[in-house]
Amino acid sequence: MSADEPTPALPLGRGREFDAIRGLLARWGDRAVGIGDDAAIVRVPRGDALLASVDTAIENRHFRDDWLTPREIGYRAVTAALSDLAAMAAQPLGILVALALPERWSASLPAMADGIADAVTAAGTTILGGNLAAAELLSLTTTVLGSAFAPLRRGGLRPGDAIHVTGSLGGPGAAVAAWNSGHRLHDQHRQRFAHPSARIREARWLADRGANAGIDISDGLAADLEHLAAASAVGLDIDLGLVPLLDGVNGPIAAAASGEEYELVIGTPPGVALDAGEFERTFGIPLTAIGHAVPREAGVVFRRGAERVAKPTGYDHLSR
Amino acid sequence: MSADEPTPALPLGRGREFDAIRGLLARWGDRAVGIGDDAAIVRVPRGDALLASVDTAIENRHFRDDWLTPREIGYRAVTAALSDLAAMAAQPLGILVALALPERWSASLPAMADGIADAVTAAGTTILGGNLAAAELLSLTTTVLGSAFAPLRRGGLRPGDAIHVTGSLGGPGAAVAAWNSGHRLHDQHRQRFAHPSARIREARWLADRGANAGIDISDGLAADLEHLAAASAVGLDIDLGLVPLLDGVNGPIAAAASGEEYELVIGTPPGVALDAGEFERTFGIPLTAIGHAVPREAGVVFRRGAERVAKPTGYDHLSR
Repeated sequence: MSADEPTPALPLGRGREFDAIRGLLARWGDRAVGIGDDAAIVRVPRGDALLASVDTAIENRHFRDDWLTPREIGYRAVTAALSDLAAMAAQPLGILVALALPERWSASLPAMADGIADAVTAAGTTILGGNLAAAELLSLTTTVLGSAFAPLRRGGLRPGDAIHVTGSLGGPGAAVAAWNSGHRLHDQHRQRFAHPSARIREARWLADRGANAGIDISDGLAADLEHLAAASAVGLDIDLGLVPLLDGVNGPIAAAASGEEYELVIGTPPGVALDAGEFERTFGIPLTAIGHAVPREAGVVFRRGAERVAKPTGYDHLSR
Repeated sequence: MSADEPTPALPLGRGREFDAIRGLLARWGDRAVGIGDDAAIVRVPRGDALLASVDTAIENRHFRDDWLTPREIGYRAVTAALSDLAAMAAQPLGILVALALPERWSASLPAMADGIADAVTAAGTTILGGNLAAAELLSLTTTVLGSAFAPLRRGGLRPGDAIHVTGSLGGPGAAVAAWNSGHRLHDQHRQRFAHPSARIREARWLADRGANAGIDISDGLAADLEHLAAASAVGLDIDLGLVPLLDGVNGPIAAAASGEEYELVIGTPPGVALDAGEFERTFGIPLTAIGHAVPREAGVVFRRGAERVAKPTGYDHLSR
């Protein structure tokens, strides 16, 4: 069979691992393609670069089973990984999912598989392959593959560029704070934590209209702005008072420290004017200018209106 | 920066995770390329298909810290993943490594990183990206990306095709048996377990000379032959007595059940004659014809000379 033909699902061999994989494939139907060979075969559009990224979600580190349903765990892990393609304005080509599955989670595998399927369907892509291994703690490692003719980079900002953020922030941080403190959890905050969106279409809309740099908010707006500034070798002047907040979020400092938002921060050069009204009518979320890039020597400055504020503390995967 | 230019390593932000990643990048030098954006940017050769696969190695499931050094753990995990590209006769484009790292393993991270570098160097490729997360058990999930104009498939066998195996088998199985029983461990058996080779160059040599189907031996020769037969919808007639054994291996049945060999099984259509002597002179390992494909109705038959033998039991990841 030539690589130009579509790859049919191949019969698998014997054993419990293969039975479990067969069950997943039956559940996924046409959301999974070309499984059964040693590697998936993918066509990259002519002239495009391939984009590849990997992300791991681990039980009790990145989620807790009393916070999320199994379906939400699957959805959220894959959406977080797909968000890295959105950050670069790439079109998804497919994902590979490596599951480390404890025995006590095996009854939840079908629901988790449905969540994985929800995420690829929302992003308009498919499951190309994976791995299933027994383990003591549940983890989902998702590799995302995408393509773009001109990927949006972290290093594209120049002094004078405008900085924009998509969506309304603070929900995931507020949800985690409510869970940890036992305070009342707003439905909308839980929803933003459990059902984030990978801003795939939004990113391509922005790149098509002249965005020259991008990053997704995984570590928190403030921390990810610092990554963007470091990669671009610029400073930033950001007014956190302009950042749209979800109802019930405890102010812009909390919102700028809220991680795993999966909203986008993008830059535009002088002369590019983005139509925030058209963006909001198209995607149902705001697009907001929050500051601009300055020379590197000026550093990254956070303000709230005229008043300078300390850097809101972000999220560091190894420290919690 | 356009995607056609080589991607320089970008400055990273703050935090312990980033410090650890910076340490890895310093250690890897030019064995790691283009790290720092949300996703790696890769060029696929024009006309080639992209091949992608993922594999996970988990502490106490796939290796034990009293069996392997940290450097061997890193080498072996990545080599096992690269072997899936060899199975399809693909040229590696790069790997992504997701590490789940317990605190008690953090001092071993540099040695593990060296082992990962050893594996990509042996395969003539580079590290494109990764993920680092705290965890309770060590695991390494490796995504491999490769390209091929005409990938070797599991489904390519037809009745009458000859079946060949590379290398001498039984070493990994004998090593695991010795560790489990406390019997004397042969150096060569340990070496085959700890330092397997991904048969990347061998596979391309074979595909260039007319091989029409392939699989790598991860579950054991017998089990992987059954996968090949199932995918191709053929039966097989295999003489295990012909399989080359390492010294000290307890016969061909044990060798055919030995998993994680990472040798190749390939098929050739009638009329293709492989020069086993040239193969051995080129790669230093034997290439051996061990049987042929038959109609599906005849099933998969294992013999030892004239005598029919039961299927040697292979390796099932979820059952041990």
